[in-house]
Amino acid sequence: MIAAIGFDGDDTLWHNETIFSMTQERFHDLMVRYVPEAGVDEHLVARERANLHLFGYGVKGFMLSMIETAIEVTRERIAAGDIQRIIDFGKMMLDHPVELLDGVDEVIDGLRARYPLFLITKGDLFDQESKIARSGLAEKFERIEIVSEKDEATYAQILQRAGVAPGDFMMVGNSMRSDILPVLGIGGRAVHIPYHITWEHEIAPPPAEPNAGLTVLESIRDLPAHISA
Amino acid sequence: MIAAIGFDGDDTLWHNETIFSMTQERFHDLMVRYVPEAGVDEHLVARERANLHLFGYGVKGFMLSMIETAIEVTRERIAAGDIQRIIDFGKMMLDHPVELLDGVDEVIDGLRARYPLFLITKGDLFDQESKIARSGLAEKFERIEIVSEKDEATYAQILQRAGVAPGDFMMVGNSMRSDILPVLGIGGRAVHIPYHITWEHEIAPPPAEPNAGLTVLESIRDLPAHISA
Repeated sequence: MIAAIGFDGDDTLWHNETIFSMTQERFHDLMVRYVPEAGVDEHLVARERANLHLFGYGVKGFMLSMIETAIEVTRERIAAGDIQRIIDFGKMMLDHPVELLDGVDEVIDGLRARYPLFLITKGDLFDQESKIARSGLAEKFERIEIVSEKDEATYAQILQRAGVAPGDFMMVGNSMRSDILPVLGIGGRAVHIPYHITWEHEIAPPPAEPNAGLTVLESIRDLPAHISA
Repeated sequence: MIAAIGFDGDDTLWHNETIFSMTQERFHDLMVRYVPEAGVDEHLVARERANLHLFGYGVKGFMLSMIETAIEVTRERIAAGDIQRIIDFGKMMLDHPVELLDGVDEVIDGLRARYPLFLITKGDLFDQESKIARSGLAEKFERIEIVSEKDEATYAQILQRAGVAPGDFMMVGNSMRSDILPVLGIGGRAVHIPYHITWEHEIAPPPAEPNAGLTVLESIRDLPAHISA
């Protein structure tokens, strides 16, 4: 029995990591003009990781980490105009149109007629609310939860408030670390739909033991058939 | 009858604007070395306001607005090392100890024995969660709501989910614009406790007509007596 289905937002319902990747490429090209051999990408990943405890997830923290990386790898030679360019990259990300993944509209419309749907998304509150509003999907979800971290405690609390037993809950998402493992951990079911890019921080190995609660699908289009099966 | 009491966080339960002010002074002193006559403070306020639709509220957006202001007022002459200094100012803000206002601990402890207490705070999700955790107050509130904007719709939705009629709700806060007017607007009661500094964006005139639901107190210490009266 399924009492509710939860969906991740970024890279499950709408494209996100492609926009980060595009920005990171632009940042890389800008930095390479200063320091051809500096390992800019690795430096940025390390900087983001070091800042995570202060900034959390989201575009604004990413912008600040790009600026710090630029200052560090150029040894303070970066021009102020190029720092403004980095800020403008970030502003473009925040303003970027929300593009739904293929099939999302139809699948959500079909499933919401039969199940309560929850949107459970992680990151910057303001940016996520803006994306949800622009996605056109907001009113299709019975509950929308924007959280700062997706761990077992987070899911347990959401389900408790919703009055849904973990065993009757199914979570659908692209991140093994945030959408799949914690839900399996509290006894729920999970459907992993990998996106073609995964942010390094979200990569995690699948469960070591085979888990009957876990399904991997190629596309959200395959979800209704899986649920009916 | 009071069915629940809501409290704002920043500058109602703990000091916040003092930390922003301190940072803004440091920023001012840094900028004055480049441009003695540039009206840095006004420029920063205007920049923050222009960025609000993209950044929302919070320290990370403030950091980015300081950096943009620095680039603009120096006409791109600011040194990268000084931009790092601005980022470090912001990191200090994010890491700053949470200092409760005088009387908060006792008043909250007294009231929670008699009423369900809600913490309703605005801003960056990650930063607010971190402050709530560090405040030591988290477990004293029946509900904690971190929202991106405090308007009538926000309060109406929170109260509906909590099953509290607006007429039975009392909100306590320092911001006329965010804590008082919207709550009065939906028929609730509000207690305004001004803080000694108010961010320009939060300033709003009090209601034009006398409002029986509005009380102004000097300190949170006066709240229990007001409620019992």
